[in-house]
Amino acid sequence: MPVPPITLTTDFGTSDWFVGTMKAVILRLNPKAVIIDLTHGIPPGDIRAGAFALAASCRFAPKGTIHLAVVDPGVGSERKAIVVQTADYFFVSPDNGVLSWALVNEKIKAIHRLENKTYFLHPVSQTFHGRDLFSPVAAHLSLGLPAQKLGPKQSDFVHLPWPELQRSSNSVKGEVIYLDRFGNGITNIAASDLHTLGQGDLQVSIGRKRLCGVASFYQAVPAGKPVAVVGSSGYLEIAVNSGNAAQKLGLKIGSPVVCCR
Amino acid sequence: MPVPPITLTTDFGTSDWFVGTMKAVILRLNPKAVIIDLTHGIPPGDIRAGAFALAASCRFAPKGTIHLAVVDPGVGSERKAIVVQTADYFFVSPDNGVLSWALVNEKIKAIHRLENKTYFLHPVSQTFHGRDLFSPVAAHLSLGLPAQKLGPKQSDFVHLPWPELQRSSNSVKGEVIYLDRFGNGITNIAASDLHTLGQGDLQVSIGRKRLCGVASFYQAVPAGKPVAVVGSSGYLEIAVNSGNAAQKLGLKIGSPVVCCR
Amino acid sequence: MPVPPITLTTDFGTSDWFVGTMKAVILRLNPKAVIIDLTHGIPPGDIRAGAFALAASCRFAPKGTIHLAVVDPGVGSERKAIVVQTADYFFVSPDNGVLSWALVNEKIKAIHRLENKTYFLHPVSQTFHGRDLFSPVAAHLSLGLPAQKLGPKQSDFVHLPWPELQRSSNSVKGEVIYLDRFGNGITNIAASDLHTLGQGDLQVSIGRKRLCGVASFYQAVPAGKPVAVVGSSGYLEIAVNSGNAAQKLGLKIGSPVVCCR
Repeated sequence: MPVPPITLTTDFGTSDWFVGTMKAVILRLNPKAVIIDLTHGIPPGDIRAGAFALAASCRFAPKGTIHLAVVDPGVGSERKAIVVQTADYFFVSPDNGVLSWALVNEKIKAIHRLENKTYFLHPVSQTFHGRDLFSPVAAHLSLGLPAQKLGPKQSDFVHLPWPELQRSSNSVKGEVIYLDRFGNGITNIAASDLHTLGQGDLQVSIGRKRLCGVASFYQAVPAGKPVAVVGSSGYLEIAVNSGNAAQKLGLKIGSPVVCCR
Repeated sequence: MPVPPITLTTDFGTSDWFVGTMKAVILRLNPKAVIIDLTHGIPPGDIRAGAFALAASCRFAPKGTIHLAVVDPGVGSERKAIVVQTADYFFVSPDNGVLSWALVNEKIKAIHRLENKTYFLHPVSQTFHGRDLFSPVAAHLSLGLPAQKLGPKQSDFVHLPWPELQRSSNSVKGEVIYLDRFGNGITNIAASDLHTLGQGDLQVSIGRKRLCGVASFYQAVPAGKPVAVVGSSGYLEIAVNSGNAAQKLGLKIGSPVVCCR
Repeated sequence: MPVPPITLTTDFGTSDWFVGTMKAVILRLNPKAVIIDLTHGIPPGDIRAGAFALAASCRFAPKGTIHLAVVDPGVGSERKAIVVQTADYFFVSPDNGVLSWALVNEKIKAIHRLENKTYFLHPVSQTFHGRDLFSPVAAHLSLGLPAQKLGPKQSDFVHLPWPELQRSSNSVKGEVIYLDRFGNGITNIAASDLHTLGQGDLQVSIGRKRLCGVASFYQAVPAGKPVAVVGSSGYLEIAVNSGNAAQKLGLKIGSPVVCCR
């Protein structure tokens, strides 16, 4: 059986040695480890962006994968660290909500706190648990360590609220929840929310400003024109064909998006 | 025999989960896959920059390597996707010209369209064929799938024009075609084009402004001074020793560069 | 025995094909190579930043690891290239000081110049020894090549001066030597330097401006407030909880930091 991969989702960036050091620690414990960078570009301390990135990608990994998510502004404080075992995966992270949206679609089997210092690096720093605590724990899990060895069971984990939609008979109102590197604004309006609006053309507005219809791909409109598509994570996203919607339309996290028939 | 590596050249950046998801898909299909990031920093939708990056690097990979290039502004439209089998490699990409300059130096054996949905992820999104189509196809190729299983043969691929040089008896005029992270401006003037100018010192101008001679390494001039060298990809490049030529000299893609005896 | 990993520390960035090409070269020579990116985000030509990054991370890698550090503004000039064999590792780099601070903690066994062209790529470019010289040498070392095969012995290597502290009976004065992606300013004041100040609360100043005390983690102060902590590399660092100290406090490399009882 091949060794289960370890994915990394962090806000550490790649300009310093932080991520490289985590990988060094993992490979020192498990020389056969397979490590996948999901992303290290989460904005510093932005737990919601980390939660969205992990939710959008974790299901594509092989069964057995250990998903390590370290967006950890509370490092060194009293916040807990956890491993969540689901039917298909292990998720390892600070217990600060970063797993919330990934776990919506998982069947949770057990949650354990990371408290058994046998599986940490020593000494444990107060500022870099990614290196000293989370990476060695992930390495041990990839070697087959049962999660219950890592610490006591707990019954729940910290949940981030998912921004709720406002609905009327012919419209649904959501917001931009993620801006990607292309400047596309991904919203919290799922494909299934659009289906509830029934057949017929849909009109998308940013705030009160009518913007565009919903198309099925970016180049359905001329270059430079706005377009809304159901993106690859299953949510409506606002784009500009061959352009940057965030810049051109002034999109921000939280910008209100209305979709109506 | 070791599994052939898969290289990735994209404009997806690394701030989101896109590249990580592609790797997860590849490893789910081939747990022994070896993946090399050539670069994910191609400017969004810049097919020419992707074509140059791939051409500058692909020959350094082991024989049998599968080169996957996804710079794909037309994703979801009618553009085709192809695999090009050459004497040494497989190249997989949208058929939009991104392979043009890499294939100049390859012996092409066959071109197939990617149309056999057996080898795609399902459902196929309209906005992320890197994940749903190109990555699984590359993974299957790395497992030994013959290219002809992927779809019907086609006889040619989309070619990007290579910017032509203007030549006189004692000069050659080209342009900046790539700006790298150091601010060096790589031109379309090859080392062999300089040889046709014969022996003797060469003078390099940007537009009509005389800039510098041709040296053999960056520190041949004092810090802060411009210098032209034949760079590692075999083309004349304009640099500033210990500085950023793009910023200091205002170099842009397309800036005219004249080299004369 | 597993193949020893190769770590990479460079200023090549990831927007071009440079690092990917190095990996391609390594895998062509050693298909089983395991490559760890420590970082490619060293500012262009900044040997000191490279030296600090390597020193902060190299000890976390498995024994036998080959550390390759290419921050090489003098590429193509008369500067030498070396391999330093220590009790635990190999270090490969231009002989320009980039290894200085990593080697402080290593037991050096031998230093060899890289002059045996058998182990280079041909032709060797004048501008990209990362690809043509350092990567193939690292690959050969990972295959078990003895370092003495690479070239003649030399007795020492280029040393960068470590910025000295100024001490009085109740204070120590150092400076910011590294700014990380969070905007934290890492200083040259080690934890042991603080211990010499004895028991009692410590006060940290930037220049003459009193800033904050020393805490044990970032969130020990309210959001937006400055805090000094002994960071994960063992040095005092200046941070702003949930903020960017470099921006907020105007920290720069060389900013004077005073710590007094």
